[in-house]
Amino acid sequence: MKFDIMRDRLLDGLNDVMKAVSSKTTIPILTGIKIDVTEEGMRLTGSDADITIQTFIPIEENGDQVINIAETGSIVLQARMFNEIVRKLPTNDVEIEVSNGFQTHIRSGKSEFHLIGLDPTEYPSLPEIAMDRQFAIPADLLKSIIRETVFAVATSESRPVLTGVNWQIKDEELICVATDSHRLAQRKTKLEQLPTDVHSVVIPGKSLNELNKVLGETTEPVQIVITSQQVLFKAENILFFSRLLEGNYPDTSRLIPEEFKTNITINGKQLLQAIDRASLLAREDRNNVVRFETLESNIVEISSNSPEIGKVEEQIQVESLTGENIKISFSAKYMMEALKAIDGQDVVIEFTGAMRPFILRSVHDDAILQLILPVRTY
Amino acid sequence: MKFDIMRDRLLDGLNDVMKAVSSKTTIPILTGIKIDVTEEGMRLTGSDADITIQTFIPIEENGDQVINIAETGSIVLQARMFNEIVRKLPTNDVEIEVSNGFQTHIRSGKSEFHLIGLDPTEYPSLPEIAMDRQFAIPADLLKSIIRETVFAVATSESRPVLTGVNWQIKDEELICVATDSHRLAQRKTKLEQLPTDVHSVVIPGKSLNELNKVLGETTEPVQIVITSQQVLFKAENILFFSRLLEGNYPDTSRLIPEEFKTNITINGKQLLQAIDRASLLAREDRNNVVRFETLESNIVEISSNSPEIGKVEEQIQVESLTGENIKISFSAKYMMEALKAIDGQDVVIEFTGAMRPFILRSVHDDAILQLILPVRTY
Repeated sequence: MKFDIMRDRLLDGLNDVMKAVSSKTTIPILTGIKIDVTEEGMRLTGSDADITIQTFIPIEENGDQVINIAETGSIVLQARMFNEIVRKLPTNDVEIEVSNGFQTHIRSGKSEFHLIGLDPTEYPSLPEIAMDRQFAIPADLLKSIIRETVFAVATSESRPVLTGVNWQIKDEELICVATDSHRLAQRKTKLEQLPTDVHSVVIPGKSLNELNKVLGETTEPVQIVITSQQVLFKAENILFFSRLLEGNYPDTSRLIPEEFKTNITINGKQLLQAIDRASLLAREDRNNVVRFETLESNIVEISSNSPEIGKVEEQIQVESLTGENIKISFSAKYMMEALKAIDGQDVVIEFTGAMRPFILRSVHDDAILQLILPVRTY
Repeated sequence: MKFDIMRDRLLDGLNDVMKAVSSKTTIPILTGIKIDVTEEGMRLTGSDADITIQTFIPIEENGDQVINIAETGSIVLQARMFNEIVRKLPTNDVEIEVSNGFQTHIRSGKSEFHLIGLDPTEYPSLPEIAMDRQFAIPADLLKSIIRETVFAVATSESRPVLTGVNWQIKDEELICVATDSHRLAQRKTKLEQLPTDVHSVVIPGKSLNELNKVLGETTEPVQIVITSQQVLFKAENILFFSRLLEGNYPDTSRLIPEEFKTNITINGKQLLQAIDRASLLAREDRNNVVRFETLESNIVEISSNSPEIGKVEEQIQVESLTGENIKISFSAKYMMEALKAIDGQDVVIEFTGAMRPFILRSVHDDAILQLILPVRTY
């Protein structure tokens, strides 16, 4: 293998695949990045066994010659070291040559690195996924869907299936649900050409977080293929594979109340900032619980106290308040994350009582629904 | 005590004094910030017993009314909590009122915090320093002097006096020296009106690092007063006190060689980058040692190797090379820090042999001198 490549383009590619490489892997070859050079260009692969990211750098891009290939071939190089070396090379012109088995020479300017590579045939092969049943979501919409749900997955492994986001396909809608059993985030999206043979899969939260970092804020479609054990997201020059979580995801639809006793419309940003302030004192008590109470004439009071430090109160004028008065306590963290997912718009909050779960949604649409279980303090 | 203040100006003041507050203090009152409100304005004091920072916010600044005082007084408030509260207040107008002893009310918009304050009479008083024997250094020059020396102080407490920078006053020169006994940084500065009664003090490296953060990149003079146990730096609206380190600082002048066998002039930036690249592999071996070897026709080779990972070599054309050839090994970290202190200019490196300390200085002047002890590898 021998080729020249523009350093900056190589760095971009490495930047993508590095997101899949973990230093904690127990499979030594996965500490490396696989490089495959063919007549068409350079393919980089990084993986931590759960997530695999593959990117392709073509010989020519936008009319520029990016790679100049003298000899094709494959090698696996220590990911972190290779990435740091490329980042620090003195010129934008990099020559990479593999000789005598896996001896790899990286040359740039007057600088020459000799790395001991690993056998590329030992690198695990990619899952085989038939591309015939794909559907598409624009990258920016996919990123929104991820951000609006993934924060609510469980962080504890006590019920592993809850560490993922449940993707259901039903009646030309993609329904994404995440819950850690104390709160729930749900996002519904109408889409075309959804597969009819897949009904429900669970994608690890970690995979979705990494995918969100890899995707750009563009309207370019991301092709998605779901199989029984893997999901593949395919954007321009990037393939992102994730394994799926096993186990049955609980039926969350019956958790969502349908009748309410109190209905409040409030400015989401104002509420978010008030909760943020109240949580300053709530946090000191370690439970991070704030109180929410309706007062007369469309006023809501947010408060919290910490016996050793002090207390805080804040009143907010709401847009509308109908039904019974309510006095309820909840986790400031859950409330703030839910409000961030709804993103600053006017928010409808519907309660059925101080000890029953309550829901939040935007006044504009029902696509996003956030549910939070209160905490008993009164 | 009762007054109104512009939040942003209060935040600026808090930002300065917070640098002296440590969460690790064993003196409970020092987790707080002392607030003194007089007819002239507001004084904030933060301290970790070693460093004390005091800042003053006048009632009027640049023609703007910053503070509106209804009643003067003093209080001590939990530093981290108070800072976070102020940062998150909803409006730029903050009212602070102390009532019923130490009950403190912080109001802004519809938000009201009630904090339990601490007794201001329990806060340690500032060291008394007579301001009659001060000298001045422009803030930007003082920052340079700090940056060029403080990195070389010892991090281990085995010889506490080496964790500070030695400031000597001799023949109208301020000579600052730091060493961890493996390398040494020295900076000489001609100054006027230096005190004649103080010859040598040791200022903790940590204090100088914090002072560097507090000072702005201006040419405004910083007034300096040195006493037997304290040093005071006085800039506009800020007083920065540091205790001095006890013990005799070693006489470092005899460590600096005066005759050399090899003299090299080299581009500092080019050398710094080559060492940085070589250290990528050196680091993996944990000793971080790189090799430096003169070759024929004004070429120097930088190299390092790590048996498991590989090796790197790089050749640099030097400006001039006189005297004997040399082959020497040293810590990449020490070399990079020394080159950064000299700051990218052409550098003269003078050697007296592979096992003897060598020195670096700028071709332009002798103000900065860096000394490094080599490592035996050949």
